[in-house]
Parts: sequence; structure tokens; C-alpha cells
Amino acid sequence: MKSKGVKIGVIGCGTIGTGVVKCLLENKKYLQRHLGFSLELVRVADLYPRKKRDVKIPSGVMTKDSNAVLNDPEIDIIVELVGGTTFAKQVILKAMKNGKSVVTANKALLAKYGLELHEKAEKNGVDLYYEASVGGGIPIIKTLREALVGNRIDAIWGILNGTCNYMLSKMTDEDLTFDEALKEATINGYAESDPTLDIGGFDAQHKIGILASLAFGQWVPQNKIYVEGIEKVTDFDIKCADEMGYVIKLLGIAKVENKSISVRVNPTFIPKTTMLGNVKDAFNAIEIDGEPIGTAILTGLGAGMGATSSAVIADIVDIARNIASGSAGRLSALTFMDKELPFKKIDDIKTRYYLRFRVEDKPGVIAKIAKALGDRNISLSSVIQHEPYSETKNVHATFMTHLAFEKDIKAAVKLINKFKEVKAKTTIFRVEAD
Amino acid sequence: MKSKGVKIGVIGCGTIGTGVVKCLLENKKYLQRHLGFSLELVRVADLYPRKKRDVKIPSGVMTKDSNAVLNDPEIDIIVELVGGTTFAKQVILKAMKNGKSVVTANKALLAKYGLELHEKAEKNGVDLYYEASVGGGIPIIKTLREALVGNRIDAIWGILNGTCNYMLSKMTDEDLTFDEALKEATINGYAESDPTLDIGGFDAQHKIGILASLAFGQWVPQNKIYVEGIEKVTDFDIKCADEMGYVIKLLGIAKVENKSISVRVNPTFIPKTTMLGNVKDAFNAIEIDGEPIGTAILTGLGAGMGATSSAVIADIVDIARNIASGSAGRLSALTFMDKELPFKKIDDIKTRYYLRFRVEDKPGVIAKIAKALGDRNISLSSVIQHEPYSETKNVHATFMTHLAFEKDIKAAVKLINKFKEVKAKTTIFRVEAD
Repeated sequence: MKSKGVKIGVIGCGTIGTGVVKCLLENKKYLQRHLGFSLELVRVADLYPRKKRDVKIPSGVMTKDSNAVLNDPEIDIIVELVGGTTFAKQVILKAMKNGKSVVTANKALLAKYGLELHEKAEKNGVDLYYEASVGGGIPIIKTLREALVGNRIDAIWGILNGTCNYMLSKMTDEDLTFDEALKEATINGYAESDPTLDIGGFDAQHKIGILASLAFGQWVPQNKIYVEGIEKVTDFDIKCADEMGYVIKLLGIAKVENKSISVRVNPTFIPKTTMLGNVKDAFNAIEIDGEPIGTAILTGLGAGMGATSSAVIADIVDIARNIASGSAGRLSALTFMDKELPFKKIDDIKTRYYLRFRVEDKPGVIAKIAKALGDRNISLSSVIQHEPYSETKNVHATFMTHLAFEKDIKAAVKLINKFKEVKAKTTIFRVEAD
Repeated sequence: MKSKGVKIGVIGCGTIGTGVVKCLLENKKYLQRHLGFSLELVRVADLYPRKKRDVKIPSGVMTKDSNAVLNDPEIDIIVELVGGTTFAKQVILKAMKNGKSVVTANKALLAKYGLELHEKAEKNGVDLYYEASVGGGIPIIKTLREALVGNRIDAIWGILNGTCNYMLSKMTDEDLTFDEALKEATINGYAESDPTLDIGGFDAQHKIGILASLAFGQWVPQNKIYVEGIEKVTDFDIKCADEMGYVIKLLGIAKVENKSISVRVNPTFIPKTTMLGNVKDAFNAIEIDGEPIGTAILTGLGAGMGATSSAVIADIVDIARNIASGSAGRLSALTFMDKELPFKKIDDIKTRYYLRFRVEDKPGVIAKIAKALGDRNISLSSVIQHEPYSETKNVHATFMTHLAFEKDIKAAVKLINKFKEVKAKTTIFRVEAD
């Protein structure tokens, strides 16, 4: 064990960086008692070193020059919090080359270059930890890496994007439209000025890719992940879901079935009396189904200074323990299995579906649709026909199916959309229910 | 690192022991790849070595003699799964004396002798890990020990007893009476032949004591924990709760407020749209409120071979890593704070209350009760008067209070119980709601 403690450099001192610096300085004594040695914050680099921050950084620690941190031979651990995928990658690679372990919260970077970064960490004998990249303060990566190490994981899925969950919660609980919910999310700081990354499902795509890679022991490239955002969710669908006992959540879903892997992000119907169905606002939740554990669900705030810096500190502490005991690099989150499994195409998945048809209000239409579905081996668990619109003779007919193949659903709906009684493109949602 | 792997002895090979042995043998290759060294199951002791088990134990491993395991100089880790608090304690102390680290799932033993066992572990320079003692497969102890190490924890609370949760779920979802629910729990293997430990709240008392000790950094003796079981919960209370938007759950609750600690177990009203309100059947769930993390909730199966053996394996792996890196004993779950906080008596807690009065159906009764409450500074958030019983002129009046001191509630209810219009002892439940 080093007598003078483990030395830390932080690069990028925005909101999260400030939270991390604050925790390292203010909880120093407590962390030391817990670890048996100290964590020393040696350098902090930021483009705006003089910016006012909610923490007093000791003199001589702050610098504008990230190289002053990366090349400091004293530093053991680099905390990368600059964001983006270009400069951040250079920072991490240089840190590793200089023999330093790395903590990052950068999910976009990991989703894009995770495999390469893991290989570089291994080559340089350093640790690469990134608890804060998924689920904010939720210790999901540590749980996969350590607590569930004796398990075979069959599925990992959950609510991974706080912005979408906030919007869908508002639409459900306060009857807002999509646009009203987006506006409220923006005003309250839950949505970026360009919300595409969140509402398009791409942030959840990054996260489910990381989780699936760790859970299944093989790298899941982003282009193997099917993505649908929440743009298509209307307040009317949310009402229909409610009527059937469901809520709509944006889920990232990764499963191993019949020796192949399917990974996708889509707005999903889930029963409102489940735990995930009651994860509201900006909370995240991740369910793991494995053997022998059965089911475990972890939930918490998915973002924000507090949750994220808690996760960054946990990584720093874990790496510091590795360093102090002379065994950096010994427990990678990513352990490869013997054999890689193939990826399933979206058309080949089998799940339940909710279908909403807008049709003319006349006899035989429902039967005609039901027959078209039946012809494709799609069986129904419930059908509801809604009152006609006041201004037209159209009605909504909603169908909930039993398990069916995606390709059969698509083929049936393609056919049904051509019926003259069908007056709008059919709405399709996937359903997760036991 | 040892070249020949870390060596494990198991004492007690019942259901959980069999699960652990199975996992160690069947996942050996996978665990080795993950750890970089092997976990070797060297000896297993059980009173019934020839009993038929769902795993093939290699010859020469099984013995009737626990001393043959405890005194084997090769063995690094002893897994104690005999249960009880007498022989189990001897096993653990002897293992530690012989320089072996210990994994146990024995919550009753830890609740009773946890402080002494931690001191002995420290003195002997070995690890004492016990993930499986609370929450089955849920990695709650690891999370407190490692993932939340940078946090100050203000509250830890949750559903800790699967039997009670199963019974209350049945009463809520299937309208069973308490006796019917208990019968069903017994038939389905969720309740022991003597269910007192579970339904009396004592199992939850063991668990919340362990969790509170770890979360707050000071030992919480069992006699500082106030306990109420679920025997008093009637199907009528469950219906009243439902009407007000609540469900009844048996919660273990530990909080730090105004620099003192309160720890208790009691059936509790919680809103049915919360996550904890939707934790059903034999599931457990634990919520942690801390700074900076905010809120995190972990949930999963609270018992059973799969979940419990997953937790035992996680402990074995953690200790094996400590041993392999030459640093056993370096991270105790129990880290003491600078200063011990005093414990709060139940009369001094402040929470919300549900009160159900059975009263004569005549004018002015409700007002008289409300005044008696108001005189003690107890303000009301809702009042519901139910239809009279068919056979009597009695009605039920249910009151939900805002935050109030327990001693004020007790004094007011004592007074009200003396009113001639009040026809039965008043029912009181504590309420957790924001």
C-alpha cells in the first residue's frame, strides 16, 4: 500500500466534476477511515479555471492545461469528465499510456469505442471504470461486475433515459400532450435544447449497449441495436394503455433467447402494477433476470450532480483499492465468454403487441381485422372498440396480442392497412408482460 | 496471487449449501475466467453426508465432521450455513481463530453477535461477509460497503420479510383474510410451521438492525429496535387503505433525524403508486436515501436457494479477490463513525398516522374526535366515515393525519378511547408518504 495515499486528477470541472471534487475534499476524512488510506486530489483541469464553483479548490490544484494533469507522474487515477467523443478519447488513451487508471461517465464514448478502450486498458495494465455512464447513481455496473458474477444473465432491461421517463410520466399523470410534456421537460431542465438524443432513444441505445455487453460477455456494437424513440407516443395511446391496465415506458431491452441476442430500445406497454410501471419522473430502473438469482431490480436517480458524482466516487474508491493492494486491472467489467452469440434481427423477435386501428364504424370490420391477424398465427388477448369520433364515422379499435413474431405482425398490418375500411396508418407498440 | 487458487470449505449443506456447492462446481470455469484464478471447493461438512442432493459432490469432499473442515490448513474461506446462533457461532469463531475468512447468511447470529464477530474478524485479520443475510440476492450490503461509500446515509428502509409481503399481497390482491393468507403461505412453503419469527416482525428486526448498523456506522443493538408484527392487520384495514390510495406493507425503517437514530419495524401505510407499494409476493426491496446520491432502491427475491446462493457466491468471490491480492480484512462493511448517535424512543418519533375509530352513528362524534386530536396539535389530511354495520348502529371513521409525534397520538387516542361513543379499541397504523 502506498503510504501517501492514492492520487487523483480530474479533467473537466463542470457540474459533475464539481460534485466529484466537492465529495473528495469534503468527505476526505470519512473516505480515509473507510479505506485505510487517503484519496488525494492533486490536479483539476478545466478550460475555465476561474469560473465560480460551489467548492473551494485548494490553490495550485486548478489548471487550464489537461496535459499538466495527464503527464503528472504522481497521479494514479484520471477522472475524465469532459464529454464528447473526440478530445475525451484522447484524454483517456493518453492517461492509459501514462499508466494511469481511468474513471469516466461518458456513455457516448463507451458505446462508440468501448471495445477499443477496454483493450487499451488491458494492454496498459490499468483499470477503466464507468459506473456513472449508465443509471446515474445506481450501482448497476458494479453489480454486474461483482455481485452477480456467479450468475448467467438471460435478460437485462429497463428505464434508462430520465428525460423520456419524465415526459411519459407527465403525459400519464397530468394528461399532457407530447409537445406540452417536452416543453415542461425543457423548462425544468430535464431536456436539452436539442432533445433528439433523448427522445429519439439514442441515449438509451448507448446505455443498453454497454449493459448488454457486460451482462452477456461480448461486445454489443451500436449498429446491432434496434431503436425507436418516443416521438410516436400520443396522449391517446397513453389513455388506451391505461384503459387496458398498462403504462407506456421507453425501455432498453436486451435478451438472450435460443442462443441469440436481441437488443432494442422502444416505447413499450408494461402493466401499471409492476415495479417498473411505477418508476416515475427522472428515475431510472434496471431489471436483471438471471440464474440462480431470479430477478433483481435496481433503481434510482438516473442523472444529476449528486447521483452521478456518487457513482464516480465509487469507481475512484474501487480503483484506489485495486492500486493500494497492487492489483490494478484485475477485475474488468467486461469478461468475454467462450463463444460469441449471433444477434437477432428485429423481424425475428417474438413479443406481445398492441395494435390500434382507426376504422370506419360499420359491421364486420373488427372481424375482418381479427381474421387477417389470425391468418398470420397472431392470437388476441383483448380487443376494445372505442366510441366514434364526433366529427367522423371513424372508431379506434385496439388489439392486444399474445406472443407473436415481429415479421408476422408487420405482414398482417401491411395487409390490414390496405383495407378500405382502415382510415389511418396502424399504430404498433411492443408489450412486455408475463 | 496464489497459484493454486483460493480454497473453500462449506459447513452445512442444506438447500442453500447445495445451491452454493452447485454454483461453485458448475460455474468453475466461468468464475476462473472472471477472476484470473480458480475457486476450489475442498471440503463440505454436513450432519447427513449421504443425503440425496441435487449436485454431484466429488468423492473425498463430503464429511460429517465440521472440524475436519475448520482445521484443514489448506482452506482459505469457510462458508457457514448451519443456521442457529450457538453452533454457528462456534464454527465462525473457530474459523477466524484458524485464520480463515468467513461467509455466512445467518442474520439471527449477526443481529445478536455481529459486533463481537466483527471485532474477532478484525483481530484475526480475516474478512467476515454476509450479503445473503439481508434481502436474499439483492446486493445491498456490497452497495452500502462499496458503491455508496462516498455518501452520508440519512435513511434506509424497506420490505425485508418475504413471508409477510406474500401474505399482505394475497390479502390485498385476492381479498383473503389474515388467516387465509397465512394458510396459503404455509401451504406454498413461504411460512414456517411456527411463523412467529416472520409475522411477529422479528426476522425484519434482525435485518434492519444489520442494515442500520452498516448505513450509520455504529452498531444498532436489537433491543433498540421497536417491533410490531402484521398480526393486527385485518382485511378491513387493507380495504380502508385501498380506498385512501394506500397499501399496507411490513417495513423495517431506520432514520437519522436531528442527530438521533430511530429504528423500527411496523406494518405501514404507503401510497400504492410508489415503487415500494408495488413490490409484491415474496420480493424484498430496500430504499436508501443519502447525500449526494438522492434515492436508490434495490429489489429482488428475498429468499430461496437461487437468490441466496447468488449472494453467497458474490461474497466468496469478493473475499477470494482480497486473499489473492494479499489484503484480506481491508474493507469491512462496518466502518465506525467518529461519534455515536443516541437512539430515539418510539414515543419521540414523528410520522403520519392512520387512525380507525369504531363509533356510534350519531351527530357530533366525528367533530368530538377531531377536536381531541386538534387539542394535541394533530392535524388531519383526510377523514372518511364508512356506512354503518347492518347489525349495529356503529360506523367506522378513518382519519389520516399530517406529521405528528407518536406520544401525542397515543395520548389523544387514550382519551378518545374513553369516549362513550367509541365502541372498540382504536386501530393505529404509521404512514410513510412524502
